[in-house]
Amino acid sequence: MVKKYVYLFGGKGMKAEGSAGMRDILGGKGANLAEMSNLGIPVPPGFTISTEVCRVYFETGGLPKELRQQVLDALERVEKTIGLKFGDSEVPLLFSVRSGARVSMPGMMDTVLNLGLNDDTVRGLIKMSGNERFAYDSYRRFVQMYADVVMGVDAHALEEELEGLKRAKGVKLDTELDALDLKRLVGILKDKVKELTGRDVPSDPMDQLWGAIEAVFNSWNTPRAITYRKLNSIPDDWGTAVNVQAMVFGNMGETSATGVAFTRDPATGERVFFGEYLPNAQGEDVVAGIRTPMPINKVGKKDSSMVSLEEVMPEQYKQLEEIYHTLEGHYRDMQDIEFTIQEGNLWMLQTRTGKRTALAAVKIAVDMVGEGLITKEEALLRVDPNQVDQLLHPMVDPGADKTVIGRGLPASPGAAVGKIVFSAEDAEEVVSGGEEVVLVRFETSPEDIHGMSVAEGILTARGGMTSHAAVVARGMGKCCVVGCHDLSIDYDRQECVIGGYKLKKGDFITLDGAKGEVILGKCPTVEPSFSGAFGTLMQWADEVRKLGVRANADTPRDAEVARNFGAEGIGLCRTEHMFFEGDRIVAVREMILAEDEGGRRRALDKIMPMQVSDFEGIFRVMNGLIVTIRLLDPPLHEFLPKTDEEVEEVARGLNATVEAVKAKRDELREANPMLGHRGCRLGISFPEIYEMQVRAIIEAACRVKKEGVVVKPEIMIPLVGHVNELVILKEMTQKVASEVMDAHGTSLEYSVGTMIELPRAAITADQIAKEAEFFSFGTNDLTQTTFGLSRDDAGRFLPEYVERKVFERDPFMVLDEEGVGYLMEIGLERGRKVRPDLETGICGEHAGEPSSIDFCHRVGLDYVSCSPYRVPVARLAAAHAAINNK
Amino acid sequence: MVKKYVYLFGGKGMKAEGSAGMRDILGGKGANLAEMSNLGIPVPPGFTISTEVCRVYFETGGLPKELRQQVLDALERVEKTIGLKFGDSEVPLLFSVRSGARVSMPGMMDTVLNLGLNDDTVRGLIKMSGNERFAYDSYRRFVQMYADVVMGVDAHALEEELEGLKRAKGVKLDTELDALDLKRLVGILKDKVKELTGRDVPSDPMDQLWGAIEAVFNSWNTPRAITYRKLNSIPDDWGTAVNVQAMVFGNMGETSATGVAFTRDPATGERVFFGEYLPNAQGEDVVAGIRTPMPINKVGKKDSSMVSLEEVMPEQYKQLEEIYHTLEGHYRDMQDIEFTIQEGNLWMLQTRTGKRTALAAVKIAVDMVGEGLITKEEALLRVDPNQVDQLLHPMVDPGADKTVIGRGLPASPGAAVGKIVFSAEDAEEVVSGGEEVVLVRFETSPEDIHGMSVAEGILTARGGMTSHAAVVARGMGKCCVVGCHDLSIDYDRQECVIGGYKLKKGDFITLDGAKGEVILGKCPTVEPSFSGAFGTLMQWADEVRKLGVRANADTPRDAEVARNFGAEGIGLCRTEHMFFEGDRIVAVREMILAEDEGGRRRALDKIMPMQVSDFEGIFRVMNGLIVTIRLLDPPLHEFLPKTDEEVEEVARGLNATVEAVKAKRDELREANPMLGHRGCRLGISFPEIYEMQVRAIIEAACRVKKEGVVVKPEIMIPLVGHVNELVILKEMTQKVASEVMDAHGTSLEYSVGTMIELPRAAITADQIAKEAEFFSFGTNDLTQTTFGLSRDDAGRFLPEYVERKVFERDPFMVLDEEGVGYLMEIGLERGRKVRPDLETGICGEHAGEPSSIDFCHRVGLDYVSCSPYRVPVARLAAAHAAINNK
Repeated sequence: MVKKYVYLFGGKGMKAEGSAGMRDILGGKGANLAEMSNLGIPVPPGFTISTEVCRVYFETGGLPKELRQQVLDALERVEKTIGLKFGDSEVPLLFSVRSGARVSMPGMMDTVLNLGLNDDTVRGLIKMSGNERFAYDSYRRFVQMYADVVMGVDAHALEEELEGLKRAKGVKLDTELDALDLKRLVGILKDKVKELTGRDVPSDPMDQLWGAIEAVFNSWNTPRAITYRKLNSIPDDWGTAVNVQAMVFGNMGETSATGVAFTRDPATGERVFFGEYLPNAQGEDVVAGIRTPMPINKVGKKDSSMVSLEEVMPEQYKQLEEIYHTLEGHYRDMQDIEFTIQEGNLWMLQTRTGKRTALAAVKIAVDMVGEGLITKEEALLRVDPNQVDQLLHPMVDPGADKTVIGRGLPASPGAAVGKIVFSAEDAEEVVSGGEEVVLVRFETSPEDIHGMSVAEGILTARGGMTSHAAVVARGMGKCCVVGCHDLSIDYDRQECVIGGYKLKKGDFITLDGAKGEVILGKCPTVEPSFSGAFGTLMQWADEVRKLGVRANADTPRDAEVARNFGAEGIGLCRTEHMFFEGDRIVAVREMILAEDEGGRRRALDKIMPMQVSDFEGIFRVMNGLIVTIRLLDPPLHEFLPKTDEEVEEVARGLNATVEAVKAKRDELREANPMLGHRGCRLGISFPEIYEMQVRAIIEAACRVKKEGVVVKPEIMIPLVGHVNELVILKEMTQKVASEVMDAHGTSLEYSVGTMIELPRAAITADQIAKEAEFFSFGTNDLTQTTFGLSRDDAGRFLPEYVERKVFERDPFMVLDEEGVGYLMEIGLERGRKVRPDLETGICGEHAGEPSSIDFCHRVGLDYVSCSPYRVPVARLAAAHAAINNK
Repeated sequence: MVKKYVYLFGGKGMKAEGSAGMRDILGGKGANLAEMSNLGIPVPPGFTISTEVCRVYFETGGLPKELRQQVLDALERVEKTIGLKFGDSEVPLLFSVRSGARVSMPGMMDTVLNLGLNDDTVRGLIKMSGNERFAYDSYRRFVQMYADVVMGVDAHALEEELEGLKRAKGVKLDTELDALDLKRLVGILKDKVKELTGRDVPSDPMDQLWGAIEAVFNSWNTPRAITYRKLNSIPDDWGTAVNVQAMVFGNMGETSATGVAFTRDPATGERVFFGEYLPNAQGEDVVAGIRTPMPINKVGKKDSSMVSLEEVMPEQYKQLEEIYHTLEGHYRDMQDIEFTIQEGNLWMLQTRTGKRTALAAVKIAVDMVGEGLITKEEALLRVDPNQVDQLLHPMVDPGADKTVIGRGLPASPGAAVGKIVFSAEDAEEVVSGGEEVVLVRFETSPEDIHGMSVAEGILTARGGMTSHAAVVARGMGKCCVVGCHDLSIDYDRQECVIGGYKLKKGDFITLDGAKGEVILGKCPTVEPSFSGAFGTLMQWADEVRKLGVRANADTPRDAEVARNFGAEGIGLCRTEHMFFEGDRIVAVREMILAEDEGGRRRALDKIMPMQVSDFEGIFRVMNGLIVTIRLLDPPLHEFLPKTDEEVEEVARGLNATVEAVKAKRDELREANPMLGHRGCRLGISFPEIYEMQVRAIIEAACRVKKEGVVVKPEIMIPLVGHVNELVILKEMTQKVASEVMDAHGTSLEYSVGTMIELPRAAITADQIAKEAEFFSFGTNDLTQTTFGLSRDDAGRFLPEYVERKVFERDPFMVLDEEGVGYLMEIGLERGRKVRPDLETGICGEHAGEPSSIDFCHRVGLDYVSCSPYRVPVARLAAAHAAINNK
């Protein structure tokens, strides 16, 4: 039996030989073309040469001998179907020849269009199209493409000939060349190819076809493609298929047209057929924007001067409507379709799931459940959790005119319009005068928090998606663009340059935090509208998900936001931010600068009442829910003053000499603060600090309990690397807690646990779980240590790494399952072996990222804890995870 | 059958009921006392109450009922053996009651001495000893100890009474109190105890005994002991034994004496019996140094005024000689023994393996093989590999008078005497004038290397055992003391203060790198003598070991030292040190400051010939052996100038503005350089740097090959965290190598591998091993990332961590098997699964540390690579590992 290598598709009313399920043999493109055919939808006919041929080709060094006849047979069938003839000078059939692997490898492999043109057939094309210029332009494009892809001619050399011709004619644009010019160009190009290669561009269409097929196969094994596959873990032996498809033309006169449409409104989600077309035009013309497209139907007409396809070609429009219903019914989702009408014949060139705004995504999904088209679970899966974020913030008006002057990383979504300020102090001052500001800094530090909290948005020149500015801004639900390399700042002169524009303090800018754009001046924004559909979808998500969703919140206000967004507790309450607020930073500095434990204790006594009231506020808001409080984590030097002026101020305030303050600062300075004297190491070295914090937590809990508040504190020890650290600090915690409860004559439930944020903690989790009642995976630090990669410094090369696919994704944004995830898995396994009821969660940035949440679901964490504004995202992503891993 | 709880030992000519093998039941102390008895050696008789009683005591809340009779029986046997009677007023038997767990828990549990004294028995003691003051002093000590340990009286309260008495008498020292004073004191103390507790110190010796036994058991469960066990992973249910042993006295007149001896000379290893004694004295007197001890034998007499034990008590001396022969024969090692002669009766109080110098250790071990006493393997095990290090460096004369003015960490052994200088430049200048210097710095940086290399020794105020200064100094085999907190430096004034002494540039100091001491002025030193025994031992080590031993060496000179010390290759040749040498730092800076790739390439072209010649030199020295070369690792900013003056100099040299240089420096500055843009990340970002290095390596190899040198380069890519990094850089390496070999018309074997120094590399070792031909575990960085702990900053708290047993040992010195070791194990397992012939080694500091080498042997590494001066240590340690893990 002869092996089947060639699979037909397309043509009107023909069944394809393949289907969507045959992706391995036909590649993605071939399988989808076949699927459309099988739905009875007219697609230009063609055939797919299977991936198996590719394997044979590389194994044996040649094409299988059975292939030639199969291709010839298929070609004949295509000719019959479309009524044109390959190589014919009257009614020439032209082909596109495209690669198509099992998975998309964008830009990696080659394509040849307009195949079949030569000096004979071009005349047929002129006749059919009535457009000589179009025909010769197609011809010269074919020659250029073929020479490049099949014959290995340097594309620049031919482009140079085109430029030469334009110079000679004294014109600038390709479109200024007329049919005669292009005809001459074809000759010039052919001569050049001959000169460079010693060979002619084949004129025999069959030679052209076989050359193109082999070229596509060969493109599978270019060094570029091999490297791409290695970086993306695509097996070499998958091979590519080759798709040979008839070309159709929408510019063959008044009975021809081309257009694109959406089966529902992609902006709002309304159930209306929505699209544009151009009569007597090619697909590129719609995209190029030279001619203004018309609405596809009467509903879409904005004024009466427009003529819709529905009016001009009612029959084809009706057919199109039927097709869109078929496609929506088949794919059960809103489709984005492309079509061409060639001399009254409608051909579908593409259908794909249509892109849509977040608003539309939610509405379409919920509507389709109502229409009985999809289930609730499918509806949940139809909304990308990342999009939900957009619904919670104001946006830059998509229709507004804007001058984008700089780009950075889209660190936190939303829009911000305000006057430029360069310091936290100025931010506060300008805002107190009733104006809105955007804080512009090289980078931010914990000392800038008061300024960040009053600003509309934050723009930094340095830092990545997990830099201080980015993390804090996301936590505040505040628009933020970081790592804007177009930005330089002169703090002394209070001015900055962004993309060549010099801007002063007080000038207006607008940030688009979803896109990472910096826009000149004030740009209009639109407030988000929470439709009822959104509430419905979130409710469905909660019904389905298994993971708990908590929030990272450090203040009563954050806690309130989190609770309103549906958080079921606080998974991470960082106590260090509290240390910066108001006057307490003075006491904190006093503590750090103290010479001995006694001095530290005196300073801590001042901080204690403030901490108690912080915790009381949070406990009240979270009444009945768990609050996990992390004891002090950052190194002490983070709290010390940085500039000379600040040092002087601190010295005055503390009645110390400037030298003493500077000396202490220098003494505390660290080479690698991330790996330094921080977290529980501080708790071991200076037990009085942690004692004060535990005392404040339990004191606050005892007090609010008397008010009737149900309080569930979890005390979390950060940066544990060895169980002994936890042994010592747990003993301290229990001792202090007992003292406080005894003093109040009450008792309350609390638990003591730890962050798992160092590889060693994960590896020795069995030992640690003997002491810890809960684990919270701190995947920010765990990623830093597992990769040996500093979040603060990664901006220097990580973007390039991601772009070049050295790392598939930024590991600070998407949890690295192989490395960091492995440590989480053994941490969980070992921890649970010792303590089966161990409570487990994650509180790194990944806790708000959908694919990471999927991982958290798979490994069986109890909850994720993300910034308040990510809570809805996490709820939906957790639902996705539950459905996808059923 | 009644359970046996009590085990007798000691007395002359009696077999003990226990033995050394019964440590679990008798505890360590009890088992050893039994062992000596069994050798027929007279030890003061006594009995051990087993650990099982401890378990019963805590389970049931009381002592087992069978115990009383067993103790009474044992007591009677002891009385008979020694001829004294417990509680007798004529010939009172006194006991010591001591704890003794399976493993030593120093200072954790309690002891009561002189038990059995009361107002009656003290009279017997006076009679027997003829020393009333001694008897009352023993009595008052007993009361204090008993009240503290058994009755829970605060020790300070009783000490206060003693002080009160001294004040009343107007004396300062305890020794100024006479017998009458002490007798009064006993009464005062008893009254005080009654006042504080409402109870009397029991006068009945049996009550005393039972009280002490219970107190010892209770001391097992003090919070302090529980925490200690937790920190040291000692199971709670092991329990402690109680040792009740008759006390003997060497101060009962002229037929009594006490002394200590070594069975061979502990300084030189010569085979002579060596010791000191005091007639009519107690053990404390020898230690206290109030009386000058006499030599034990005629051989030891330094002048004729001395009277040896051999002359005074020839019979007992002869017995002692027999015992020492027995003990050496039994333990088959040099012994350190303590004895007491009570009225002509010789009692052995202790025997233990004697401490000895490195010199003695080697000589004794090799001699004992010659004597047929031990095997070669045993001889190898008798020498601590860490000691060998001492044999390779000059030492501070142990007998010299010295004023120690500061202490730091003993970072690199040896002695250094020289004039103080505060900069690398001054070091070079002073040394070029023919003088010797000690370089004194806050800390050192790669720029100081030229100064370090000419200095006799290096002293720093900051840093730990693996700080830059420590690592480089060990690599150079140069004396170094780091982290000396007693040191403050004023660079401007060119002076420093060490432990209160102000010293100027040019003043002499001496460093003892083995002890970490800073000594005022010039202190005499002694050169090491390599005895023939040392060579013999090293040869035996090489016969036995399985691990290869390579060295970390960056220069031909280092390579030569390494080869002379027996290195079998270079496991780590760091190329960055080469970048600092001479004029090339200028070209390196030019490269870093270049605006684009072209500029970098021009600068690299200048560096290339120098790198080639570096490698040629190393290859020639290592002819026939493997040389593993690591491509550039540190972040580029390490090469940039630091002070303003340096910046100006660089700017002049490069024809750039000071601002431009500073701006570049600021731009490159990193928050956490350890986790920054370094290692292979540089190779990805700036491929031209690695290309130059590979070109230089292969170029050099091709050239020396023509000279007939056998060259085996291994090219090592540092800091790989993801296989894709290696994919890209290996491709680059192979491409460049082929080009160079083609140009030379030759080919040579080389391999490409990687460091495993990030947790993620270990976890994904299966992927990485597909590309890497060898793994070298970089355990310095792996420890930093696994613990999340910066070597440079750990000094701030790590010493306290080790002291408090939070970490059992400094993980930068001793490989952390649980955490870092686990990652090595999975790295090896996964790597070998994919590539069974994967070559594996370790090149971190741990590669020269014996217990870490044992681990490397156990997990089956192919080799360790340490600094040249550690090579002999590693050879011996590898032999130990092979023997111990047979």
